Amino acid sequence: MFDRPYAAYQPGERWESRGRTITEADLVLFAAFSGDWYPLHTDREWAARGPFGQRIAHGMLVLSIATGLMVFQPGVVLAFYGMDQVRFVAPTFIGDTLRVSLTVAGVQEKSNGGVVTSAMTVKKQSDQPVAVADIKVLVAK
Amino acid sequence: MFDRPYAAYQPGERWESRGRTITEADLVLFAAFSGDWYPLHTDREWAARGPFGQRIAHGMLVLSIATGLMVFQPGVVLAFYGMDQVRFVAPTFIGDTLRVSLTVAGVQEKSNGGVVTSAMTVKKQSDQPVAVADIKVLVAK
Amino acid sequence: MFDRPYAAYQPGERWESRGRTITEADLVLFAAFSGDWYPLHTDREWAARGPFGQRIAHGMLVLSIATGLMVFQPGVVLAFYGMDQVRFVAPTFIGDTLRVSLTVAGVQEKSNGGVVTSAMTVKKQSDQPVAVADIKVLVAK
Amino acid sequence: MFDRPYAAYQPGERWESRGRTITEADLVLFAAFSGDWYPLHTDREWAARGPFGQRIAHGMLVLSIATGLMVFQPGVVLAFYGMDQVRFVAPTFIGDTLRVSLTVAGVQEKSNGGVVTSAMTVKKQSDQPVAVADIKVLVAK
Amino acid sequence: MFDRPYAAYQPGERWESRGRTITEADLVLFAAFSGDWYPLHTDREWAARGPFGQRIAHGMLVLSIATGLMVFQPGVVLAFYGMDQVRFVAPTFIGDTLRVSLTVAGVQEKSNGGVVTSAMTVKKQSDQPVAVADIKVLVAK
Amino acid sequence: MFDRPYAAYQPGERWESRGRTITEADLVLFAAFSGDWYPLHTDREWAARGPFGQRIAHGMLVLSIATGLMVFQPGVVLAFYGMDQVRFVAPTFIGDTLRVSLTVAGVQEKSNGGVVTSAMTVKKQSDQPVAVADIKVLVAK
Repeated sequence: MFDRPYAAYQPGERWESRGRTITEADLVLFAAFSGDWYPLHTDREWAARGPFGQRIAHGMLVLSIATGLMVFQPGVVLAFYGMDQVRFVAPTFIGDTLRVSLTVAGVQEKSNGGVVTSAMTVKKQSDQPVAVADIKVLVAK
Repeated sequence: MFDRPYAAYQPGERWESRGRTITEADLVLFAAFSGDWYPLHTDREWAARGPFGQRIAHGMLVLSIATGLMVFQPGVVLAFYGMDQVRFVAPTFIGDTLRVSLTVAGVQEKSNGGVVTSAMTVKKQSDQPVAVADIKVLVAK
Repeated sequence: MFDRPYAAYQPGERWESRGRTITEADLVLFAAFSGDWYPLHTDREWAARGPFGQRIAHGMLVLSIATGLMVFQPGVVLAFYGMDQVRFVAPTFIGDTLRVSLTVAGVQEKSNGGVVTSAMTVKKQSDQPVAVADIKVLVAK
Repeated sequence: MFDRPYAAYQPGERWESRGRTITEADLVLFAAFSGDWYPLHTDREWAARGPFGQRIAHGMLVLSIATGLMVFQPGVVLAFYGMDQVRFVAPTFIGDTLRVSLTVAGVQEKSNGGVVTSAMTVKKQSDQPVAVADIKVLVAK
Repeated sequence: MFDRPYAAYQPGERWESRGRTITEADLVLFAAFSGDWYPLHTDREWAARGPFGQRIAHGMLVLSIATGLMVFQPGVVLAFYGMDQVRFVAPTFIGDTLRVSLTVAGVQEKSNGGVVTSAMTVKKQSDQPVAVADIKVLVAK
Repeated sequence: MFDRPYAAYQPGERWESRGRTITEADLVLFAAFSGDWYPLHTDREWAARGPFGQRIAHGMLVLSIATGLMVFQPGVVLAFYGMDQVRFVAPTFIGDTLRVSLTVAGVQEKSNGGVVTSAMTVKKQSDQPVAVADIKVLVAK
């Protein structure tokens, strides 16, 4: 997706990533890396008594994997500028397969390039959205 | 921080986390986990020719570690609701030590609890902010 | 638990940790980190022919996770002093959820603080103990 | 196996390793480490529609684990010299247990030791080969 | 590179990957994952007394990372077919940055596609080759 | 070491392992796996102000790696029975290389084998001990 100078993005254009299955190992690895061992993610007994009846993936795990599913062309992408309106709208369970879809919302010129804003949806295999955000990437001229 | 029912948070109250040093191993582990091998994070030669003269941490690495530095009391925190206005304002280098400060901005009542919004700043050892965001956590009654 | 100067611990006082589910990924990660690939932990076929009929977690995996389930307050804990009478009393299987309970046995004064000795039991979801030890933590005045 | 000076290897002599079960965590860890997230290894939905009906292990994962199952005596092995005729002959599925068998093919003298060439077969619990190669190890005099 | 049906590859055509810096963390992670803790890779004191005066990366680490630096288009690549003439021609040290270059050697038709054979060279920042191999990838019609 | 039936161990016999260098990556990986992010191990700034002037390895990291440095012959070793008198006697710094020495203290017959008790010392490159323990391994007849 982020493989062209900023002037080449058209509002409304869409892109979809490959998929990645979220495994129990991913929940362990992300808990370990981040240090966030909240029991809804890491304690099967505790999670079984909660609203989902099972462990769910961390919201930040979902966002981290989403960035890895995108394409950032070296030399074209200058910086990950930021995100607005990040919302976790449904739980991701062990075994779900996520993919990312992006829709360009607009481009804002800056001195050293342009900030491309896209509406991102992270979806499961059933097309149910699990996270949405407006992501902003600084792209070269 | 997130260790009390939502009615107990006062706008303006502040909290600060312990620190965590960001190592070269963290950059490798996060690139590996997320799948984001952008050369600014993972190619020393490429990064040496760029604006920072060295590799920098992924923005999402910084946010992921920030969530692990917070305290989420089991049973009190119901969900990570979302984030607004996430901005990466300075680079995090290998060897920097990050900590998180939170300032409560307000609480919004919901049917099953309250959304506590806090201004988060992730800072280095020199107190320079590297990332800021408004984070929203759904807390029990 | 270890969040107060040494004079504040009373023999007989008890503390219990949150839980953590031991996954197949944990067995792989610990075998990898430690270098201990004994087939009872890592070879499903070999373990199926053994006394438990399945793979079991390493004893040291159980102890390592136990230390992570405890609370060590920065500035209060000076050192992990040692352990006595460590015994692995039952197998931990993939899918078991462990938690730690500690009972203070006594405090021994040292020049720079006090060694708090606690009887530690690591238990599964069924309350069956899997490991016991007397652990000794050097705590500040 | 590689625990003797090069003159001590007899063509035709055989050696077999312990086993290691290939878990879903191993597929995630190898995809992460290598950066090869090909969906046949990491996307359950995509793999389900393919010729095997499920995810399979990376070929290079199989070879990497094979080298870890061998015995390389410090001081005896000088270098991993190379491999010929590496072929991936059957898929390795999650849950398969692999072991390595080696048959010495011959020894070629070099100035600083000898290159021992062995026919390597990586096999599953059913004895079905999944990978074969001629591996060449430089061994001391 | 592997992003087109097999008929579209021309002998002599070349492709070069992005780079990846090999860190001390990579040596630890690969030793851990593979189980190959040979001291030339993992014992600084032992390696200091050896021919290179320092630790070097595992040969299989280099090959594993090489596969992650290539581009395998989902749906186009059917299988990793094999490798011939794999040779480790120079040591990779901690801090070296590797990239892969491929030169198409030829295509061999099979019933379900074509095997594209390429001469692979893994090189450091100085352009010195560290590993060479003929790699064979089964590509769709 | 643990490669023979229990009757074959002589009090006073000694064994020494290969070495393993403790890297910054190991501290990160163990903090992550165990969940023990005590700042003496993971916060460079905090550790610099402490008694050692730098980060030190977790005691349990040292013990975990020690078990991986030992040799446990499949079929000979029945269980890791326990440990007595575990003491952490000196800090392990990033860059230290550890090895294990064992001296057999005695064998105690059990119904299904024998418990071999050994005095274990984990030492650095300078031969300074960092941890000592009496370790007890249940070995087959």
